[in-house]
Amino acid sequence: MHAATLSMDYDHPDCRPVLRRIRAQAPFVYGLTNYVAATLSANVLLAAGAAPAIGAAPGWPAGFGGQAGAMWVNAAGLINCTARDMLDAVDAANAAHVPWVLDPVAMGAGVGEYDAIIRTLAARTPAVVRGNASEVVALAGGAATARGVETTASIAQAVPMGQALTRSHQVIVAISGPEDHILAPDGRHIIVPGGHPLLTRVTGAGCALGGLVAAALATVPKESDRLVAVAAVHALYARAAEIAARDAGGPASFATGFVDALSRLQDSATAGADV
Amino acid sequence: MHAATLSMDYDHPDCRPVLRRIRAQAPFVYGLTNYVAATLSANVLLAAGAAPAIGAAPGWPAGFGGQAGAMWVNAAGLINCTARDMLDAVDAANAAHVPWVLDPVAMGAGVGEYDAIIRTLAARTPAVVRGNASEVVALAGGAATARGVETTASIAQAVPMGQALTRSHQVIVAISGPEDHILAPDGRHIIVPGGHPLLTRVTGAGCALGGLVAAALATVPKESDRLVAVAAVHALYARAAEIAARDAGGPASFATGFVDALSRLQDSATAGADV
Amino acid sequence: MHAATLSMDYDHPDCRPVLRRIRAQAPFVYGLTNYVAATLSANVLLAAGAAPAIGAAPGWPAGFGGQAGAMWVNAAGLINCTARDMLDAVDAANAAHVPWVLDPVAMGAGVGEYDAIIRTLAARTPAVVRGNASEVVALAGGAATARGVETTASIAQAVPMGQALTRSHQVIVAISGPEDHILAPDGRHIIVPGGHPLLTRVTGAGCALGGLVAAALATVPKESDRLVAVAAVHALYARAAEIAARDAGGPASFATGFVDALSRLQDSATAGADV
Repeated sequence: MHAATLSMDYDHPDCRPVLRRIRAQAPFVYGLTNYVAATLSANVLLAAGAAPAIGAAPGWPAGFGGQAGAMWVNAAGLINCTARDMLDAVDAANAAHVPWVLDPVAMGAGVGEYDAIIRTLAARTPAVVRGNASEVVALAGGAATARGVETTASIAQAVPMGQALTRSHQVIVAISGPEDHILAPDGRHIIVPGGHPLLTRVTGAGCALGGLVAAALATVPKESDRLVAVAAVHALYARAAEIAARDAGGPASFATGFVDALSRLQDSATAGADV
Repeated sequence: MHAATLSMDYDHPDCRPVLRRIRAQAPFVYGLTNYVAATLSANVLLAAGAAPAIGAAPGWPAGFGGQAGAMWVNAAGLINCTARDMLDAVDAANAAHVPWVLDPVAMGAGVGEYDAIIRTLAARTPAVVRGNASEVVALAGGAATARGVETTASIAQAVPMGQALTRSHQVIVAISGPEDHILAPDGRHIIVPGGHPLLTRVTGAGCALGGLVAAALATVPKESDRLVAVAAVHALYARAAEIAARDAGGPASFATGFVDALSRLQDSATAGADV
Repeated sequence: MHAATLSMDYDHPDCRPVLRRIRAQAPFVYGLTNYVAATLSANVLLAAGAAPAIGAAPGWPAGFGGQAGAMWVNAAGLINCTARDMLDAVDAANAAHVPWVLDPVAMGAGVGEYDAIIRTLAARTPAVVRGNASEVVALAGGAATARGVETTASIAQAVPMGQALTRSHQVIVAISGPEDHILAPDGRHIIVPGGHPLLTRVTGAGCALGGLVAAALATVPKESDRLVAVAAVHALYARAAEIAARDAGGPASFATGFVDALSRLQDSATAGADV
């Protein structure tokens, strides 16, 4: 059952074909996310070449949830839409076989009512769960270790919990941290090195990655190819952060350089000759 | 009935007097817009010299709608306020003869319930409708061609539909695209060249332009001068984008440079001698 | 009763120990604020070393209000949460002795229903009220002089009203302007020089300062030390703005440089030897 653990960065030959498809297909990606992260999320998706729409205007959850190429649901979006909106979007997506990403932001921070909504969403077959270590631990049924939206759990604690979660929910689990771990129900395990610490100083950077994961899913026809696609956008993120960190004078110029680098890396992936 | 089509850029002698009035009068401009675009919209208005306030706190729609120098209503603002809030604001604005701009974001994307709200708003005498090609086509009664918040219609398709819309609703119609078309019910037609493609990679750039159109309206006493005022802020936008694109390393540094350029162009318009 | 008026900038020996504690303790700071200012507020807090969470997801106001090290309530947050959410958060904070900041955004702009909610909040023992001159005048019972979210009152008008407010509500009052005035119920009065005018061109800059004041409160065990802590973050703000203004090409690059400078000043405060 356990395949070997694989390491994958932006230079891995499986990475650019995924990224190139996002630019080429410009998938319509629908998101229910929070207003703190929404603008960066949209700009990250535009930089990558996707076509995002965000929010729960009347009729959008059921409408866009079924029309989109993929969707992401960021639990902290409950600061600006209802659980009903999220469920409508998820049901529409599932009915139309639209893959979607669940980001269990701030799960395990000690607010039971909020965590219960995330459990309800998680039971509705997301294609991917993406979160930090504390969030994955909490969703897998472990201890509540989040401090607001921040993790206090380690990647080492989260990986075995994430592996349990992949099996119990038949879902790909992506854990963000100093290195990212992408886990599949069949035991495959991809490590993406190099999550830059400056990413933790830019609000919404993790949330925006959830949107980018959805963009990748939208371009993958075969379910078995999803794991690599999810890892590829994590590798893009890590490389863009590495580039941006070189010239950054602080977290704000880093964020600017990061979105610029995402766009330029997508330019170069598109210009490349492979596949 | 048809006046000649006119081209207008930032160097046109009619442009700077409009822009200078925005800086000089610092109009209070009230906006109901979406949280994805709200921050950029406020910063664009501040850069131009206006005094924006955004959102539907209790009492604000009826209060600020009647107090403001002008108002803009961005339909995607329905992700964070109710249709009732928008109608209250519009009714207050109309009662106080405050001109307002309607931005039919994502109209024609196949969500009937949402489109119906926009039709209700459009029936309440906005001074200007500003949108992309698909949105204008949809509001004019044409086919639904939007893909989320993006257009798939061309400017060539949208201009005749926009002209019909000017007459049916007695409204100025501004269509954003590779070149912008500003249309009046009396047949006047101004083309503003040079909408930079990088503007389409910055979320909320179009939405923010709706706010800037409102700022221009706030400073124009005569209704017949509105068409030129609307064109002038489009010309300011195009020039600022052109300046920002020169040094941009990607869409995020472009966005920063764009707001900076708006501010500096307004400085230079203010310092100029032409009235 | 009246202590002497003191001037305090970033180089004052009492300043850095406050700032260093924020970095060292990384307090969890909970905010109910508006979506126009939310992203900048979170980024300012992250730059300073705090751990912010923002918004009223189900259960968060009562949960995070009681768990946080400190909280800020920005009245314009009523554009995206209810008065009930704010009251729940305030009650939870008070029950757990969590100090909180009230920012009476746009008070005195002529919307009675909105102003009444702020009065209700102000009656529930905030530790600090932070606002511009018009807002402080209005909350102290003076004339309504706000124009949307902007002040038309002067600092000279606001200081005596702020002093009255400190006594009537037993609250520290911080008035932002060309120079900031921090006032205590016991008559202490600290002036922080140098609020840069470019800060008024960046939407949410004042709102974000409210969050930073909360971060400072979270690290101060003794109530009598709060006044200096509040002044210290104002001094940090002023110095970061001064640094950012040197190289800014306009308000957007200023905002980027400002957050970067906050982060670097916190680095250097942390590296310093003074305790």
